[in-house]
Amino acid sequence: MVFLKKSRKETTGKKTTTKKLERTFSLQKVVLDTSLFVNPDVRQSLGETPTEALEAFLFLAAQIHILEFYMPPSIFEELLHFIEMDKIPEDLLMILNQKPPKKHELKCPAFLLYELIEDIRERVNKGLRIAEKAVRSVEKRSTDDIIQDLRRKYREALREGIIDSKEDVDLLLLAMELDALLVTADQGLIKWADKLGIKWLFPEKFKDYLLVAIKRSGIIMGKSK
Amino acid sequence: MVFLKKSRKETTGKKTTTKKLERTFSLQKVVLDTSLFVNPDVRQSLGETPTEALEAFLFLAAQIHILEFYMPPSIFEELLHFIEMDKIPEDLLMILNQKPPKKHELKCPAFLLYELIEDIRERVNKGLRIAEKAVRSVEKRSTDDIIQDLRRKYREALREGIIDSKEDVDLLLLAMELDALLVTADQGLIKWADKLGIKWLFPEKFKDYLLVAIKRSGIIMGKSK
Repeated sequence: MVFLKKSRKETTGKKTTTKKLERTFSLQKVVLDTSLFVNPDVRQSLGETPTEALEAFLFLAAQIHILEFYMPPSIFEELLHFIEMDKIPEDLLMILNQKPPKKHELKCPAFLLYELIEDIRERVNKGLRIAEKAVRSVEKRSTDDIIQDLRRKYREALREGIIDSKEDVDLLLLAMELDALLVTADQGLIKWADKLGIKWLFPEKFKDYLLVAIKRSGIIMGKSK
Repeated sequence: MVFLKKSRKETTGKKTTTKKLERTFSLQKVVLDTSLFVNPDVRQSLGETPTEALEAFLFLAAQIHILEFYMPPSIFEELLHFIEMDKIPEDLLMILNQKPPKKHELKCPAFLLYELIEDIRERVNKGLRIAEKAVRSVEKRSTDDIIQDLRRKYREALREGIIDSKEDVDLLLLAMELDALLVTADQGLIKWADKLGIKWLFPEKFKDYLLVAIKRSGIIMGKSK
């Protein structure tokens, strides 16, 4: 996770041998999704409300010197809908770097197109079967009931476990670009992170991960003094 | 389309100056879709039936020495469903090279993921609205009528103008890999060829394109004698 690397200076000439060893840290980058603070099952360990969870995270993150935290602006905007921003100290918020992915420079493996399209094809067919069932059930139940049921089932079938928004793509591409660890509670994103070779973390391990990073930060900072 | 290039031999030493000029041709590659032979509007100029259209194409292609014709095996398999293969001379069929794309080596620009996903998102929403309408119309018409109508509208909404099968991806990637001209009657494929910087031809110009290529083949072959 953290690499101690002798700096170039130190190895290239006699002049530097008497100098204190310089160390460069290769900071692990971490890309965060809104779901960590919004999904009640996942945020539990951090706080009762999204605002509390974000604040708790920022408080922990401020003590970590071996990680860098990132969020695409589109995801941050999503987060704003759930957070009472006036309750979050502004200087803490600086810990969370906002960065969009370089979407016009990045490339993705072409075989993923096959998987994405097969995935969509299956779902589209499933959506049609759900719609047909709804039409056939009209005689038995009220139209409003059926429509409500149709909407839920259709959305479940077509959206769950799939990357279905530009925000999802932002998260994946940013993690790819930064060679970062992706932390999300979205199963569709985790599935795709796996396909793309992006590191990911079980979201329920997020707090533990932060606590370990705080501990390590102390050890490393102590050593480098 | 065709480049006459003096060969290296000719320019590097005296020994070769007395030799007949060697010429290397950079052959334009052409990737063909089934739709050219199956879609009645498009195949019209080539033949009454898919079999006739394919035979007419192969007959013309046999006289062209400046183009190479390709088809992904998955597309060729699709074509087999429409063709009476025993009516096609086997040696003519050799003109149509079968080659799958190198799907694990090719990369595509990441920003296309955004476009694909936005496209799908819109269609999925459209599909739901169609399904809702169908449910609401049950009182007015028979269920079977509605279901039939639903299927047609749903498929139109979710599939037209979109790449929705692995065969579509095969065509795009093969054209990309070979830097080939893509000839298809599928609007979804043409839209995506455009996004990916793949050359494409209006399908109704296909026969004219072949006739011009025959003429040019004659001129070039004549010159190189």
